[in-house]
Amino acid sequence: MINPEAKNPNLEKLDTDYLYHLGLDTSMDLKSVFKDVKYVCMGGSADRSENFAEKVAEQLNIPLPGGKAEPIGKTERFSLYKVGPVISINHGMGMPSLSILLHEIAKLLEYAGCSDVRFIRIGTSGGLGVEPGTVVIADEALNEKLEPKHVKTVLGKDREYPTTLDERLSNEIMESRGDINAVLGKTVGTNDFYEGQARLDGALDPGYTEEEKMEYITKAYELGARNFEMEAPEFAAFCLRAGIPAAIVCCALLNRLNGDQVTSTVEQLAQYSDNAQQIIINYLKRKLYKQK
Amino acid sequence: MINPEAKNPNLEKLDTDYLYHLGLDTSMDLKSVFKDVKYVCMGGSADRSENFAEKVAEQLNIPLPGGKAEPIGKTERFSLYKVGPVISINHGMGMPSLSILLHEIAKLLEYAGCSDVRFIRIGTSGGLGVEPGTVVIADEALNEKLEPKHVKTVLGKDREYPTTLDERLSNEIMESRGDINAVLGKTVGTNDFYEGQARLDGALDPGYTEEEKMEYITKAYELGARNFEMEAPEFAAFCLRAGIPAAIVCCALLNRLNGDQVTSTVEQLAQYSDNAQQIIINYLKRKLYKQK
Repeated sequence: MINPEAKNPNLEKLDTDYLYHLGLDTSMDLKSVFKDVKYVCMGGSADRSENFAEKVAEQLNIPLPGGKAEPIGKTERFSLYKVGPVISINHGMGMPSLSILLHEIAKLLEYAGCSDVRFIRIGTSGGLGVEPGTVVIADEALNEKLEPKHVKTVLGKDREYPTTLDERLSNEIMESRGDINAVLGKTVGTNDFYEGQARLDGALDPGYTEEEKMEYITKAYELGARNFEMEAPEFAAFCLRAGIPAAIVCCALLNRLNGDQVTSTVEQLAQYSDNAQQIIINYLKRKLYKQK
Repeated sequence: MINPEAKNPNLEKLDTDYLYHLGLDTSMDLKSVFKDVKYVCMGGSADRSENFAEKVAEQLNIPLPGGKAEPIGKTERFSLYKVGPVISINHGMGMPSLSILLHEIAKLLEYAGCSDVRFIRIGTSGGLGVEPGTVVIADEALNEKLEPKHVKTVLGKDREYPTTLDERLSNEIMESRGDINAVLGKTVGTNDFYEGQARLDGALDPGYTEEEKMEYITKAYELGARNFEMEAPEFAAFCLRAGIPAAIVCCALLNRLNGDQVTSTVEQLAQYSDNAQQIIINYLKRKLYKQK
């Protein structure tokens, strides 16, 4: 699962490893439950993860025990669903929450003896020069300074990690788009939804003008960015470091070149979110039927 | 609600403001529902927010419509409960998720015409030199470089904000501790649970030794820090900027000077979490009975 050179040698010293936020630990028989996992699909909300698990079961014709998706482990922080070789799980909002999940799910699948696993983030985002409903498949993650790197502070010092994504996986997902409007482009991940994405509609005086805002988001667009979200650099950097092929596939809920507010109806938003999920289901169908 | 000098003048241009992550907007009658709010109590998980709302109702003898806590707005991202003058809501994990909530709840209460509102974060944390179950009431937030400031990147440039908390509020909460073990101290908020808090049990080789880890957390302890969590600098900086008195009250789930793993039983963890909630309920009893 994890690239041998990147594995944490300290874990060998633990009698039991408590994956605290998942509510699972190594005293359980993780192998028999998780050994066949090949795809981990993650998104922000628990509702969407449950919904995606049920769609995967239905469209890939994988029977669910008890007829419905049931979470494994605790659900206070994350809700983990398993449908055959696919895990569907939510990571909350933002890179710190995502980072907790990445560490614990990578350890889980390593302990379970999995191999050739791919991580796919299916999310929502603010589009840049693309219409609402368009799916953006990231070919690279940029940080909020619009650089292709992720900066983490460890023991009080900054460390920089590259944020390249898996080109082959992204292209295969792009080829699975069917009738859905999709583009390849860079994805900017920020630590703040309002001022971090140059919105003018936060609670407090942002201290910048409409012109300064447009200058920043136009610069992002010119660098090839097609959407803003809040997870891409951490996701790309972690997976690259671990040696796990990874892709980021987000629907655009609005076009940020036209405004800041998400004003679509509940039905429209559900359709936009469906678009990103459906491309991944198309991709999974191609890969899983092919393997048989 | 918000300090007049800090208010966002751009909001006046919006016909309707969609508080997207709350599922509420200004076309609704926010005043009649929220105008009496005086305390916003927030924690990481939706389960704990519901549980806290029910405890407030019971112990402060505030009747709930329908006999149980029902969320207001959508629950995909955050779950908002209102019990008389108290809002109980979850903010997810990490500063980016918290930041979304702070912007939207501050706008909500501003639109509702609230005044003299206090924000209190009730969380879980890793203790520093305190035993599991101890409640740490923060007198200042430190960032992961152990500095009393919060750095945010806006339009690609770093901005620094101070992270002082409300001394009077913190002291009043400390005086409400009753029999519960509580200390005043600094709280370190990081962007990562594993390597950001110098743990040795993440998925990947952290690239530092046990000695380097202990040097970092001992330095934090010597600077007066008594716990690590993932929200304090954003929470303190936002509230200070907005002019909202704020406090951070977290139970310690373990003592990081002794290890990295959370190994307590489910029952012990529930008791630790109760300790922080109970101190705030004691505080609310003092304040709300006194006002009558």
